[in-house]
Amino acid sequence: MLVVMNAHATAADVATVADRIRQLGMDPHVIPGATRTAIGITGNRGSEGRDTLMMMPGVEEVIRVTAPYKLVSRETKAEASRFPVANTHIGGGFTLIAGPCAVENESMVIESARFLTERGVKLMRGGAYKPRTSPYSFQGLGQEGLQYLARAKQETGIGIVTEVLDIESVDRVEEVADVLQVGTRNMQNYALLRRLSQARTPVLLKRGMAAMLEEWLMAAEYIVSGGNRQVILCERGVRTFADHTRNTLDLSIVPVVKHLSHLPIVVDPSHGTGKAEYVPSMSLAALAAGADGLLIEVHPNPSQALSDGAQSLDFDSFIRLYEALRPIATAMNVELL
Amino acid sequence: MLVVMNAHATAADVATVADRIRQLGMDPHVIPGATRTAIGITGNRGSEGRDTLMMMPGVEEVIRVTAPYKLVSRETKAEASRFPVANTHIGGGFTLIAGPCAVENESMVIESARFLTERGVKLMRGGAYKPRTSPYSFQGLGQEGLQYLARAKQETGIGIVTEVLDIESVDRVEEVADVLQVGTRNMQNYALLRRLSQARTPVLLKRGMAAMLEEWLMAAEYIVSGGNRQVILCERGVRTFADHTRNTLDLSIVPVVKHLSHLPIVVDPSHGTGKAEYVPSMSLAALAAGADGLLIEVHPNPSQALSDGAQSLDFDSFIRLYEALRPIATAMNVELL
Amino acid sequence: MLVVMNAHATAADVATVADRIRQLGMDPHVIPGATRTAIGITGNRGSEGRDTLMMMPGVEEVIRVTAPYKLVSRETKAEASRFPVANTHIGGGFTLIAGPCAVENESMVIESARFLTERGVKLMRGGAYKPRTSPYSFQGLGQEGLQYLARAKQETGIGIVTEVLDIESVDRVEEVADVLQVGTRNMQNYALLRRLSQARTPVLLKRGMAAMLEEWLMAAEYIVSGGNRQVILCERGVRTFADHTRNTLDLSIVPVVKHLSHLPIVVDPSHGTGKAEYVPSMSLAALAAGADGLLIEVHPNPSQALSDGAQSLDFDSFIRLYEALRPIATAMNVELL
Amino acid sequence: MLVVMNAHATAADVATVADRIRQLGMDPHVIPGATRTAIGITGNRGSEGRDTLMMMPGVEEVIRVTAPYKLVSRETKAEASRFPVANTHIGGGFTLIAGPCAVENESMVIESARFLTERGVKLMRGGAYKPRTSPYSFQGLGQEGLQYLARAKQETGIGIVTEVLDIESVDRVEEVADVLQVGTRNMQNYALLRRLSQARTPVLLKRGMAAMLEEWLMAAEYIVSGGNRQVILCERGVRTFADHTRNTLDLSIVPVVKHLSHLPIVVDPSHGTGKAEYVPSMSLAALAAGADGLLIEVHPNPSQALSDGAQSLDFDSFIRLYEALRPIATAMNVELL
Repeated sequence: MLVVMNAHATAADVATVADRIRQLGMDPHVIPGATRTAIGITGNRGSEGRDTLMMMPGVEEVIRVTAPYKLVSRETKAEASRFPVANTHIGGGFTLIAGPCAVENESMVIESARFLTERGVKLMRGGAYKPRTSPYSFQGLGQEGLQYLARAKQETGIGIVTEVLDIESVDRVEEVADVLQVGTRNMQNYALLRRLSQARTPVLLKRGMAAMLEEWLMAAEYIVSGGNRQVILCERGVRTFADHTRNTLDLSIVPVVKHLSHLPIVVDPSHGTGKAEYVPSMSLAALAAGADGLLIEVHPNPSQALSDGAQSLDFDSFIRLYEALRPIATAMNVELL
Repeated sequence: MLVVMNAHATAADVATVADRIRQLGMDPHVIPGATRTAIGITGNRGSEGRDTLMMMPGVEEVIRVTAPYKLVSRETKAEASRFPVANTHIGGGFTLIAGPCAVENESMVIESARFLTERGVKLMRGGAYKPRTSPYSFQGLGQEGLQYLARAKQETGIGIVTEVLDIESVDRVEEVADVLQVGTRNMQNYALLRRLSQARTPVLLKRGMAAMLEEWLMAAEYIVSGGNRQVILCERGVRTFADHTRNTLDLSIVPVVKHLSHLPIVVDPSHGTGKAEYVPSMSLAALAAGADGLLIEVHPNPSQALSDGAQSLDFDSFIRLYEALRPIATAMNVELL
Repeated sequence: MLVVMNAHATAADVATVADRIRQLGMDPHVIPGATRTAIGITGNRGSEGRDTLMMMPGVEEVIRVTAPYKLVSRETKAEASRFPVANTHIGGGFTLIAGPCAVENESMVIESARFLTERGVKLMRGGAYKPRTSPYSFQGLGQEGLQYLARAKQETGIGIVTEVLDIESVDRVEEVADVLQVGTRNMQNYALLRRLSQARTPVLLKRGMAAMLEEWLMAAEYIVSGGNRQVILCERGVRTFADHTRNTLDLSIVPVVKHLSHLPIVVDPSHGTGKAEYVPSMSLAALAAGADGLLIEVHPNPSQALSDGAQSLDFDSFIRLYEALRPIATAMNVELL
Repeated sequence: MLVVMNAHATAADVATVADRIRQLGMDPHVIPGATRTAIGITGNRGSEGRDTLMMMPGVEEVIRVTAPYKLVSRETKAEASRFPVANTHIGGGFTLIAGPCAVENESMVIESARFLTERGVKLMRGGAYKPRTSPYSFQGLGQEGLQYLARAKQETGIGIVTEVLDIESVDRVEEVADVLQVGTRNMQNYALLRRLSQARTPVLLKRGMAAMLEEWLMAAEYIVSGGNRQVILCERGVRTFADHTRNTLDLSIVPVVKHLSHLPIVVDPSHGTGKAEYVPSMSLAALAAGADGLLIEVHPNPSQALSDGAQSLDFDSFIRLYEALRPIATAMNVELL
């Protein structure tokens, strides 16, 4: 940390702050300046003591210097993480996770699983439990939906990515899921994150609607620090003033995450744009930006979908997208998984 | 809802859309225009069918017209809600809720409760369970903290407002709390909201960091529709590009909430600004804007606080604030509670 | 400035950075830490050299510590600025500036001026030149509008606040105006700001739609550093994700501006909210927050207004607002001007 | 437009609104509903009359349905625009515009022009006039800088893209420039846009920091409606809460612009990210997203740059980027220009 004294701070103010820093078990380094004095601090853990120092006479600002995340950081682990999921893996390739927003009935799930498997897709998304803005909206089939997903898996061998909404249902969902999805509204549901840190199944952690990069990595740190190292980050757009897309897809976070963390990151262009017609270009852009994969909504009949139909690709569009991804992946020397 | 056809839509496209609307059990009203045709829809419930229509040939846009919240709306209940809390009430006056961010030990809680009671404050805030961005930060005293709050209540009669983080601890917290606080990160934790809709205790629902007004009211609707009508909204600042305050306190939402909903709304200027020196002016502004009260951080010794010290008022500053509020309340003919 | 080295930086990296800092004519102060080394810099002017240092091997971050504005800062001038405008003054009271969005014809301007003068308002706003999003919208009456304003001034003695859109028209506008208004879209039109720094008339500088506090103060610094010290800041709402108001009125910037700068600041609740019904509560809140005044839209017949009618008060509403402001001003011991 | 009446509106309210619509020369279409009545409007031009209607008794909302831009719209001109610039063209390929942020001296401009020309780049960017946040920062070499650019053009044949800050200097800049750049802070400087609508040189219009898509297209409409059809849009990142990049690069606007407008759009990943290390991945992503080109900062020696050094590529990095773009362009069947 760095304490910046204001222009009117006296020598006595500076000395008092330095003493307080020592009391807190840290080391002050006074840096006199032409108009202001700064005090560098070493030996601190995170931003502990920051609030205390900000209250002292003569102090203008206390600036935090180092990042608070540890286990998810590249400084802790230099090589990119990669882990097996069902009969494929995440990290070090470009992994497609596709499927309907919600599990609506058995046949549409089986139909989707078959279609995707035939196309070489190894992971299917599909929500049995759905978080909905309105208490009056369709909330998912729940336990019944999980059974349909299990049957699709049994029949086709496809891996399952599905959302877990609360601690209560973690065990139930884990019986079926190959990846447990945490939704954007739950990114800082710390009770849930702690429970998932005990799970044996990988977790796909969506970025919160207004999450800073640091908060997102700290949420991942909750899971990793509890023992579950298999965390996949998922950028799905953030909320800004812009209204030409449902959210503002922040692809620039992909290279930044790659720089700061060893965790894999996938992109959800369906929620990111909210319109099926913009999904393909954002999918190609995600691949070009260096993401580790896509989480993408595909539905046998989008116009009949119970939720998010407008942003779901139909099977034909998905095939076209797949064909468009392939040559770019080849050009970039990345394996499509 | 209103369907807007694009400039190239044919008469057949329009007819097909109209048919589909009828199939969905709603009524289409075709409005021919110079360059485009629009189709008004009546008989719809919420935005059901919207996605379906957006996918149809010739459709440019589907616009939702009516608000999806019902029970929390002024259209459902025209008079402002007001309900008793401990030995005071919320709604129809300006209620002060003050106290430390976190319960740190027994003596500071008792000291705070005594100070506030002497000053006429009837409700004390204080977190036993704390949601923290980092898994390595102080997470609150938990059960022990609740006991301290209970003791403070017993000794002084002050009402307790404290946060509930997860379903598991609702029963425990409800034994002590007069108001259950839902934090900003949990505003859309629907499992928790549903559990609280069964509680007998009023709920203070903080606005999410990037919550639209409609989402916030829908979160309240979750609680009210389950049977708990005692919901207090709390504006605590939203996340924007601005960095001169910790969050951007959105006071303009106060009159809008008052216009659209009968629920009371209080303002948290401590999280809203993040700096104790800006809390008093934002408190006065909240009163002038028509809020029903304040949720405000006060600490016996802010520079020693374990969390959020920089935004906590000390006792002297609180007294000065109280003295500044009083004449404005009088001028506005509002009772300070 | 403070240079933070990354965890892998070598002693040689640190030495090279320190040398470079000396070459740039500044002084390095090396602060060794447990995991990272930091280098405090003194003797720098602003953030000069920052980019250079950020590119060097081993450097993680370069943090700017001091504010770049000088003449507008409280550190330069401790007392709040106050200057005469027409037959009143700005600063040290609560000054009302009211009137129509646009000058539409002579009679409405005269009618407005008479109404306001009778009510004791000393400054009238009204745009002759209007910046419009669409090239096809009404762009203001221009020169003709200025003449109407001049006549209103002549007849009633009211001071005139009117917008200047470009360098070309500054002379013309200055003949009539007592305050030159710079619109939100022109806040960083540096050519215009430089021209206004030569003007003899006070300038009201609206905050840009996405302006950080620092950028706003720097824009004011452009005007003041060129010789025109009479700058009035005007908060008019910023652009965020929120859609319940036209913009998000950031009242919290009022106390922050007061803390950092000696310039007066007024609030425009009309553009801030975009709806006449929310203007009164935000006006009272601005007063309570410590602003130096209001810029507010009043129109003899809002439903016939050529622009911004929805956010304009009619005369009766303005009278009610005035009556509501008065007791609060008294309670706060502030003079209504 | 669509008028939505509130739940308490009477039949008389509805009739009065309908009459007013007729008076305004438009046609009302009343759509009765279960809880509310809506009134569709046809025959309107843009949103004229909207404010008037919003003020009427019983009116809840007035929703604008059609887009206000005309000449820049795909509905007006279905084929994508493409126009020649210097010895290349913009539109229908992927055009690279590279070079230093600012013209610093003659040798660096010549050196840059030679380097780029050898690599096949046909357009060089470089600012002679620089808009700077601080009045105390380097403001560009002005006229002298233009001469250096002219010499670089003469020697290498490279086309010149350079910024124009104000009306006064348009003629001077046009003598040298092949494309006139309008900076982000000037996107709504309508006086400047109007002047440029008279220019014979293409205009590159950067998106404002908080510009909605519609406002951006309307700014382009200012230029096109005045007679200059050669407008190139440039996405350069918008301002959001996120702090991991300098701005938030909004690549999703590329396919949306392509859908709504025939104008070409290029991407500036240098300002978009603010860090040279993230520029390559965002450049590849821009190509994959369907942009018509890049505006990118390249400097012979970024660590010595007078402005924006941290976001400038050095020559070697630019070569690597170029080599990375080539196979993706081939895979996408797009010509690198």
